[in-house]
Amino acid sequence: MSEERILYHLPLSAGSRAVRLALAEKGWDCALVAEPVWERRESFLVLNPAGEVPVLADGATAVCGAGPILEYLDDVQPDSPLIAGGPAQRAECRRLCDWFARAFHGEVVHPLLDEKVLKRFFRRGQPDSETIRLAKTALTAHLDYIAWLVERRRWLAGDVLSRADLVAAAELSVADYLGDVAWSANEAVRDWYAKLKSRPAFRALLEDYVPGVSPPRHYADLDF
Amino acid sequence: MSEERILYHLPLSAGSRAVRLALAEKGWDCALVAEPVWERRESFLVLNPAGEVPVLADGATAVCGAGPILEYLDDVQPDSPLIAGGPAQRAECRRLCDWFARAFHGEVVHPLLDEKVLKRFFRRGQPDSETIRLAKTALTAHLDYIAWLVERRRWLAGDVLSRADLVAAAELSVADYLGDVAWSANEAVRDWYAKLKSRPAFRALLEDYVPGVSPPRHYADLDF
Repeated sequence: MSEERILYHLPLSAGSRAVRLALAEKGWDCALVAEPVWERRESFLVLNPAGEVPVLADGATAVCGAGPILEYLDDVQPDSPLIAGGPAQRAECRRLCDWFARAFHGEVVHPLLDEKVLKRFFRRGQPDSETIRLAKTALTAHLDYIAWLVERRRWLAGDVLSRADLVAAAELSVADYLGDVAWSANEAVRDWYAKLKSRPAFRALLEDYVPGVSPPRHYADLDF
Repeated sequence: MSEERILYHLPLSAGSRAVRLALAEKGWDCALVAEPVWERRESFLVLNPAGEVPVLADGATAVCGAGPILEYLDDVQPDSPLIAGGPAQRAECRRLCDWFARAFHGEVVHPLLDEKVLKRFFRRGQPDSETIRLAKTALTAHLDYIAWLVERRRWLAGDVLSRADLVAAAELSVADYLGDVAWSANEAVRDWYAKLKSRPAFRALLEDYVPGVSPPRHYADLDF
C-alpha cells in the first residue's frame, strides 16, 4: 500500500480549491492529479462511488468530498485546527462553510462555470445570458454578505482564519477566474480577499490555467 | 437569555428528521417548533440567514443546518459520539452523510416531495409524472447501494450505529411517508431500516402527520 498522498481535483472545482488551500495552510505535501470525472474511470469510482472531486487519497484511506476532507485534516492534525473555539464558534464556522459551498456555489459559481465553460467543453450549446445575469445578481448579494461579515469580524467566522475563509475564497476565486467579480465596487471584500490571496497557500491557485479559458489579468495579481 | 432548547423544523424536512433522531439518541430534551420557512419570518432569519430548517437554538447559540448540528451535538457531548473510530472511519461516516443528504436527497427525496406535496401546497400546478418516474428509478439504485453496504457492515458506516444511519433513515422515512419505498423487493434494506424504526428515537417521527398528506398504512408499523 502506497503511503503517498494524492489529491484528485479539477482546477476550477471550488471544493478542490478549498482543500488545496487547507492542505497548504496545514503544511501537508500532496501530489495533485487532475481527474476527468466525466470519464467515470473505474479506478476512481472505487475511491469515490459518487464520482466527484475532490478526493484525498492518504495512503490507503480515501477521503471523499471537500467537507469530509476539511474535517479529516483537523481530525488527523488537531494541534493546528482550521476551525477554532468552542462548539458554538465551530458551529458558526461550519454554517458558513455550508453557506458558501451550497448557496454561493449553487446560485453563483456553478451556473457561471456551467454556462461559460462546461457548456462549451461538453458541446451543450450556447451560454444562456439570462442564467448568467441571475448568477451575477446573486453574486452581488453574496458579496454584500461577505462585506457585512468582514466589517464585523477579522475573518469570516471570527478572530482567526478558518475553513470558512478558505471555502469562501475558493468559491470566489473561481468566479474571479471567470472575470465576474467587480472588485472596485466591493472594497471590504477585496481587502479580506487580498489578505488571503497574499498567503503562500494561495499561490498554486493563482498559477492555475485551464486551456481555452483565460483568467482576467488581475486574477493572479496580488495588488488588484 | 433563555436556556431553553428549541429545534426549528418541518415534519417532512429530512435534515430536520436526522437531527431529531440524533437528539433522541443523545438523550437531549428539545422543544420542536414547526417553522413556516416560506413566510421568511424576520426573527427566524436572524437565527439562520439562509432561512432554512433545521435550526437548533441551544440557549443563546443558534446552530444552522443538519450537518453542523450533528457535528455540534458530538462537540458538546463527545462521550457518546454518533461518529465512531479514527479519522479514516470518521471520514467514511461523513462521506455517507454527504451522500444521503446530497445525492439521495437531490435525486430522490426532494423531487418526490416537490412533485407530490410542495407543488400542491404552493399551487404550482400538477405533479410531473416523468420527474416522479426518474426519482423512483434513482431510488431503486440508492436502495441497491444501501443493501450493498448493509450486506458488508452491521451499520452503514461500520460496526456501530452512526450519523450515517440516522441521515439515511431520515431521508428514507420521507420517501416512505410518501409511499414510494418497495420494501418487499428490498429485504436487506428493510432489515436495517426495521432495526432503526424500532429504536425509541424513531417513535416521534412515526407519529408525524402532515395535514392533507396521509402516509401509507405500513409507515408507522414496526413489522412492515
